[in-house]
Formats: sequence, C-alpha cells, structure tokens
Amino acid sequence: MSLLVTGSIGIDTVKTPFGVSKDCLGGSAVYFSMAASFFTPVRFLGAIGADCPFDLKKVFKKRPVDFAGLEVRYESKTFRWAGSYQGAMNEATTDAVELNVLAESPPKIPEEYKDSKFVFLANTAPILQIQLLEQLNNAKFVAADTMNLWIKNNLADLKRLLKKIDCLILNETEARMLANEHNLITAAGKITKSGPSVVVIKKGESGSIIRQKNGDLFVLPAYPAMLVKDPTGAGDSFAGGFMGYLAGSKKTDFATLKKAVAYGTVVASFTIADFSLKGLTKTTRRDIDKRLKELGKLIKF
Amino acid sequence: MSLLVTGSIGIDTVKTPFGVSKDCLGGSAVYFSMAASFFTPVRFLGAIGADCPFDLKKVFKKRPVDFAGLEVRYESKTFRWAGSYQGAMNEATTDAVELNVLAESPPKIPEEYKDSKFVFLANTAPILQIQLLEQLNNAKFVAADTMNLWIKNNLADLKRLLKKIDCLILNETEARMLANEHNLITAAGKITKSGPSVVVIKKGESGSIIRQKNGDLFVLPAYPAMLVKDPTGAGDSFAGGFMGYLAGSKKTDFATLKKAVAYGTVVASFTIADFSLKGLTKTTRRDIDKRLKELGKLIKF
Repeated sequence: MSLLVTGSIGIDTVKTPFGVSKDCLGGSAVYFSMAASFFTPVRFLGAIGADCPFDLKKVFKKRPVDFAGLEVRYESKTFRWAGSYQGAMNEATTDAVELNVLAESPPKIPEEYKDSKFVFLANTAPILQIQLLEQLNNAKFVAADTMNLWIKNNLADLKRLLKKIDCLILNETEARMLANEHNLITAAGKITKSGPSVVVIKKGESGSIIRQKNGDLFVLPAYPAMLVKDPTGAGDSFAGGFMGYLAGSKKTDFATLKKAVAYGTVVASFTIADFSLKGLTKTTRRDIDKRLKELGKLIKF
Repeated sequence: MSLLVTGSIGIDTVKTPFGVSKDCLGGSAVYFSMAASFFTPVRFLGAIGADCPFDLKKVFKKRPVDFAGLEVRYESKTFRWAGSYQGAMNEATTDAVELNVLAESPPKIPEEYKDSKFVFLANTAPILQIQLLEQLNNAKFVAADTMNLWIKNNLADLKRLLKKIDCLILNETEARMLANEHNLITAAGKITKSGPSVVVIKKGESGSIIRQKNGDLFVLPAYPAMLVKDPTGAGDSFAGGFMGYLAGSKKTDFATLKKAVAYGTVVASFTIADFSLKGLTKTTRRDIDKRLKELGKLIKF
C-alpha cells in the first residue's frame, strides 16, 4: 500500500571515531525512504534549496521512490547539520545546524499523494505535522516521530497531534519526558492513553519496545552489531523498515507490528555500519531477510 | 551438582522513590543463594559479625542452602551498606559503607565444600577470589563477578583471575572498561580472549549479552517489569538464577547457558519488584517458570 513520508533532506557533516564524512547526504526523509524502499513504494515529500549537491533521483535509482513531492526552492538553501559522536556513540552532539528550507513553509502535497494509506511524519514541529495530516483524505495508519524540543516547548500542539495519529515512534529519553514516567513500559502505556494505539520506543543499542493501547507488549534487543561507524540515520532507518514492512504487508495487526519492529531493527543495523547512506545502499533485501533470521536465532533460548 | 557461593552478607539501608528500607538483609551471597536455591542446593560461604540481626537459617528455612560455611565472628561487625536510587533507578549511589568483616581475612572453606563443582565468586578483591579458588579441588565451572574498583586498581590480579575462571559476569560499564572497547559485543570477545570461555554482560533494564570464546552469541532483553521498587540485588539474583540453573542442569553447553541467562533475567525481575529479599521470598519456582515462558513469548516475532 502507498506509503508517504515527509521529513528533511540534509547536507550532513558527521564526525565519529571512525572518521569524518563531510557534506554527505542525510536527513530523516532520505534515510526513511531508502530503508522503506526495500519493502514497498515510497512517496517522498520534502524540500531542498538551490545549493543541494545531490541528485536524489540518481541516488535512489532503481528504487521505488516517487519524487513528485520533492520541491526545489531556488531562492532557498538546503538544511545542514553537523554532528559528532564519541565513545559508545549513543548520542550525537550537534556541532552546527542551519535550518534553511526547514524554517520555511512545508512542501505542498501533490494531488496524487493525497490518498496515501500509510504515512510517516518525521520529526518536525507538531503543528506542521498536524497541518500535513489535514491535507490527507484517507490515511489508514499514521506514524509520527517527535523530539524533546517539542515536548518541552510545544506540548499542547503535540497533544493535539497524538489524538490524530495511530503510532508514535520516539526514543527512550523522549518517552520518559512525554509520559513524565521513568519506567518505559508504564510510559508507553501512558502515551497510548493520550491518543496513538501503538507506541514504539527506540533504545538505540538496547533495542526497542512496542506497546499497544490494549496492553500488548513486545521487546526486542538491537541486532548485536560489531561494526558501528556512524549511527546517523539509525532511528529514521528503523522507522523506514518498520513502516515499509507494514505498508508492504497492508496490515497493522500485532503480529505484523512485531515483525515490522524486527525489520526496522535489522535495517538500522545496516545503516550504522557505514557513513551516510553507504551502509544501506550496498544492502539487498536478501541481506536483510538473512539478518532477520539471524536475529530470531540470537534471541532464542 | 554442588554450587558454592562466596560473597557478602550485608545490613543494607536502601532508599528509592518507593520508600526506605532500613537495616534490611542484603549482600551478594544472600541474594545469589536465594535466587539459586530455586534450582539447586547451595553451599553458602560468608562471614558476619556479632551484631548481625538476621537469622539466616531462618530466612532460608525450607530452602536447600547449607550454612556450614557461615562464620560468625564475635569480635567483628557485619558489613553495612547504605545506598539510594533516583529516577530510572539504573544505578545506586552509595551513601555509606562499612566494610567491617569484609576487610578481614575471608571465611575458611569447610572440608565438605572443597569438592564443589560449580562455584560463584561474588565481587571482591581479585586476590581473595584467587585464594579461594586455590582451596578447591575439582571445580568444573567457576564464575566470578568484579567491579570498576578492581579493574582500575588491581588489574594485574584480575588478569590472573581471568585465566583461572570459566565465566566472568559483569555489567556493561565494567566490560567496556576492562576491554578498553566501547562496542559491547567486541568487548565481550576481547575478554574471552584473556581467559574465561564465557562472558556475561549485564545491562540492567536493557537485558544481557552472553558470548563464548568461539564467538557464539546470545542477546536477551530484560523482562519488561512495570514494578521496580528496589533494584538492589538484581545483579546477584541474576547470577544466582544463572548459576543455579547451570548447576541444576549439570551442563554448560551453549543451549543451557542461554536458558540460564533467561532464568537469571526472570529471577532478577522478581527481586526488583520489592525491597530487600521480599520480592524473591514470595516467589515460587512455578512463578519463575511461568514468567520464563512469558518472556519467550514477548520476544518472539
């Protein structure tokens, strides 16, 4: 089924103990689309400035990603992010950020995207996420990401958004903050009570938790990756694998949601093995399925 | 098979967001023995002072724990620890500690303990762990715990110990420190190369990792506990469930090790549900087996 993503396209500069990747392609919509494209066609919605050095259609060549929703704004500049990771590389330090095109009005949804059934709203101001949703006619399963900034400064908007979506995907710090609760299982339960029927909590190298409003629970460790060169995009790749698998399956029952979490986990493990999109672009669906099986074996007792 | 544990008996005062437990029974050997006693008989080795207000034989009534190795030192005082947990309760802050009997010579091993096949050396100075091992004749599987203090200050002793044991159980911070490596899977591999054929890394609410020298790997999330009142003793209960299950099974092949990790995980989840030993003492083997099954289901996709 149709999967729409809206999010950022970024010019990233990333520093990790394994090296520096200067002015490379990044952004939530980019990682998401690459990850989701293993499972289903993707409708891409995002904006870049005239300075964007990447030909996205070329980068996504042979992948089922529709760029009808890619706006090139010749008066604007592309979003830029510079970040670095130290030590266990669990968290990025933002060294510099230029919002540029992200500070402008969001891209317009092409008519042919408006019937999208599966929708992923990557992290941005919740009011923009709401405005985007209002332009869609018939979404079946909407997932959104968010961050500490909005929980702190735009909680009223975020609460409105929560009532309009089916699934919230966020990290453990954000989940604790949003639910005002330290225990993650309880936090996930509290969040489902405020709107979404499903909450997915990403715990980085410690895996993830998914909880449904009815209490159904699933916990999964991360794939035990020995090679982690650059964690940038892991969360968006996870979301891409997750939503891509759901849209491809055309189902959102709990068994499918669990398998989608497992696919998200595995896809993210390929992302972090190299800088920028290199980890994902050299991966095949066969590699992903093989690693999924391996993960299933690794946790079996 | 016979399982020997040596470690501390403590008078603990613990403060968590759920309340204060003053002068309650604690200590690594105590938590370990209670946890292991669900699976196999335990030989207890430890020392207390004249001030010890607990009748251990009464506390362990009807449990297969042999106290022939409990030394009561009438001139000494019992080990005391006061600690507190905040927020997510992932780490204890030590508010006060009185080593007392732990600063003296270690307890003597009774003759009838010397043929013990499974041995757990709870955290103490590695030189004492080595001395203890030297008194045993015929151990089949020796596991030891350690801590940052010894890694920092007594690394040479610790390295000697590693060559004499089969399994090192430690937490993620300690594993990173000992291996001088951030990636936990790689760290576990490095540690197995320095001696033990098995390394178990405890990650608290994020579960655990077990790795064998041959590269065999198993990862397990923690049981998703909604009620965590007091994490004290979780690590020693984990070790108790782990070693108890191995000794009870009389096997240490990888399939048995994996199941032992799962049992350790489940037993620890009962420990943290209440203060001191209350969580464990009200638990039955049937409860443990039931939760083990539940954990197996919770991670299945």
